[in-house]
Amino acid sequence: MLEDLNKYRCLKRGTAGAINIDPLQRGGVLTPEARDAVMEWADGYSVCDFCTGSLEAIDNPPIREFVREALPAFLEADQVRITHGAREGIFSAMHALCERGETVVADGNVHYTTLLAAELAGLNVELVPAGEKPLYRVDPGGYEEAIERARGRGERVGMAVLTYPDGNYGNLVDPKAVSKICRREGIPLTINGAYSVGRMPVGAKSLGADVIIGSGHKSMASSGPIGVIGATEELAARIFRRSKLVPNKELEMLGCTLRGAGILTMMASFPAVVERTKRWDEEVEKARWFAGEMEKLGIVLQGDRPHSHDLMFYKSEMLYEISKTAKKGRYFLYKELKKRSIFGIKPGLTRQFKLSSYQLTRDELNSVLSAFEEIVAHHPKA
Amino acid sequence: MLEDLNKYRCLKRGTAGAINIDPLQRGGVLTPEARDAVMEWADGYSVCDFCTGSLEAIDNPPIREFVREALPAFLEADQVRITHGAREGIFSAMHALCERGETVVADGNVHYTTLLAAELAGLNVELVPAGEKPLYRVDPGGYEEAIERARGRGERVGMAVLTYPDGNYGNLVDPKAVSKICRREGIPLTINGAYSVGRMPVGAKSLGADVIIGSGHKSMASSGPIGVIGATEELAARIFRRSKLVPNKELEMLGCTLRGAGILTMMASFPAVVERTKRWDEEVEKARWFAGEMEKLGIVLQGDRPHSHDLMFYKSEMLYEISKTAKKGRYFLYKELKKRSIFGIKPGLTRQFKLSSYQLTRDELNSVLSAFEEIVAHHPKA
Repeated sequence: MLEDLNKYRCLKRGTAGAINIDPLQRGGVLTPEARDAVMEWADGYSVCDFCTGSLEAIDNPPIREFVREALPAFLEADQVRITHGAREGIFSAMHALCERGETVVADGNVHYTTLLAAELAGLNVELVPAGEKPLYRVDPGGYEEAIERARGRGERVGMAVLTYPDGNYGNLVDPKAVSKICRREGIPLTINGAYSVGRMPVGAKSLGADVIIGSGHKSMASSGPIGVIGATEELAARIFRRSKLVPNKELEMLGCTLRGAGILTMMASFPAVVERTKRWDEEVEKARWFAGEMEKLGIVLQGDRPHSHDLMFYKSEMLYEISKTAKKGRYFLYKELKKRSIFGIKPGLTRQFKLSSYQLTRDELNSVLSAFEEIVAHHPKA
Repeated sequence: MLEDLNKYRCLKRGTAGAINIDPLQRGGVLTPEARDAVMEWADGYSVCDFCTGSLEAIDNPPIREFVREALPAFLEADQVRITHGAREGIFSAMHALCERGETVVADGNVHYTTLLAAELAGLNVELVPAGEKPLYRVDPGGYEEAIERARGRGERVGMAVLTYPDGNYGNLVDPKAVSKICRREGIPLTINGAYSVGRMPVGAKSLGADVIIGSGHKSMASSGPIGVIGATEELAARIFRRSKLVPNKELEMLGCTLRGAGILTMMASFPAVVERTKRWDEEVEKARWFAGEMEKLGIVLQGDRPHSHDLMFYKSEMLYEISKTAKKGRYFLYKELKKRSIFGIKPGLTRQFKLSSYQLTRDELNSVLSAFEEIVAHHPKA
């Protein structure tokens, strides 16, 4: 097993020059500045050259200022810390703010990692069911009912989570309406902004969130894994509490989290990320135009209408019919797109799939549309 | 706060071309292959281009083979997973294997993150005290006494941890002797190999460990944060158990951990890392020679004698005396070394400090020795 290890030496990504429409990937493409940063800071523990006891206290590079001033302003949160990613941030919030055995209420389109975080923290989950196809909408009022259901069973509800937007349909539930219910019921609201923080102009205060979660690799042009967590002063005191055994270290973060190059890529991209959130309207407009063109081909957008996010879920019975007789079977769509240097739709999917138009040019999106058009035209239906 | 963000764009590390003797940094310097990998895979979630549901199942790049075959062989462990770092791996093992309220027994030279991990998992810690200066040795037999002390108080001992070597003195406690006690008492032994895995020829079976922890950024020439955890089949079934809510995901890892470039740097460096562990004897010999030369200057090695690790802790009353009247006070040593392009001793330290000779050439170490010699010669003692 330890012979012939050369195969690990020079692995290539194999998607160079391609158009990547995977929603996971669009918001994590590094800026040129972040690419420079990754080379400068790639070695092991490089950011700890001038460590003074904790990651967020480092002045050289200026991590302290970034985390204590720039990020709180950006996230409209009193306190911010760097995490290993959105899921780890959600776990920290749940672990710190909830007691084992309590219940978390979350939207029915919740990302699976929120379920994992709750389970790992010893919590139950009560979902606010999503509505039927094709909209899959979550009604904010459903939070009230979910809280009542849990309480009716004698459970204590320790937190509400809203995935904003969700990672399946790109749906945006009115956060203020959810927040109002949570305030009334005395339950902290955590907003999972893995697909909004760094893309859309969002902030904890504007959304009515007590805790806000972001993902660096999903939406902040950062080299993953990395994320952010912001909280009100009151909740921050609990989430970022000091250890009893090692009083100068924050317990929930195990001292320091992102002791590597990732934090420098987030910092290097940050000016561009702040700017791009101001142009979010253009992204929404582009997504709507793209969806309209896809629908002309018989590939139908699911979720919110009008759609307000670049993450889009499509269904197509036609592509499914084609797959029944296509040479490569259900892999035909993946192979045909690959042939045209388009990546990001999972191999084997035809009847339904996700994609994102984020930060792609109209020319690139026209190439994607032409590809679908050709593929449909050149394949006989079953 | 969100104006003038350009300062984050192009941050330089400022230690280019310098000799870095920080023990944190020596084993994390990337190989040329890893530097190529970081550029190739730096974007966000790049390793997930061809995701099939979990990080360790990805065939392109060949993460599955690396984690399921190469790493288990290297670590002599039945099952291995990638973690965010050593501390996160230790937390996972404790959280999965111990019940809240139980006690963990650990060596008195334990890294502070083990204390944090235990506290976060709701566990008590009983230390095996380290002996007096200058050796600071931990007696393996002390584990038996610590277990008895905890049990005498009615506590259940859920795990023993041995830091091998510790991160302060680079001391190596006989792991087989500790393992024998743990086996007899029916307590799993976790070895924190943050400073051994990737440097020394170590493996769980040879050491007698049930769980072995490594650090990519500390000792495996990887871009941090990243680590490894290996375990016996029996304990792996508990640590890497599947979620009940999301049955195809591993709960303790929150699904996937290192969804970024770090894992590719670990893979790219791995052939070189395997090779360098075979030349560990040369590193020990070099460290002993270096320590001998330092002692000729009146800077005295602490910890094991003969010393068997590149991590060395020094004391010097003489440098402390100099600092009392030196122009820069206690910062004089840092400044004088910096002037000579030598980094890694924390600003303000003179009376005692750590350094590492790992992977430095004799020429480079001679430069370090000359620097100390000059500094001592050119400063009058108080």
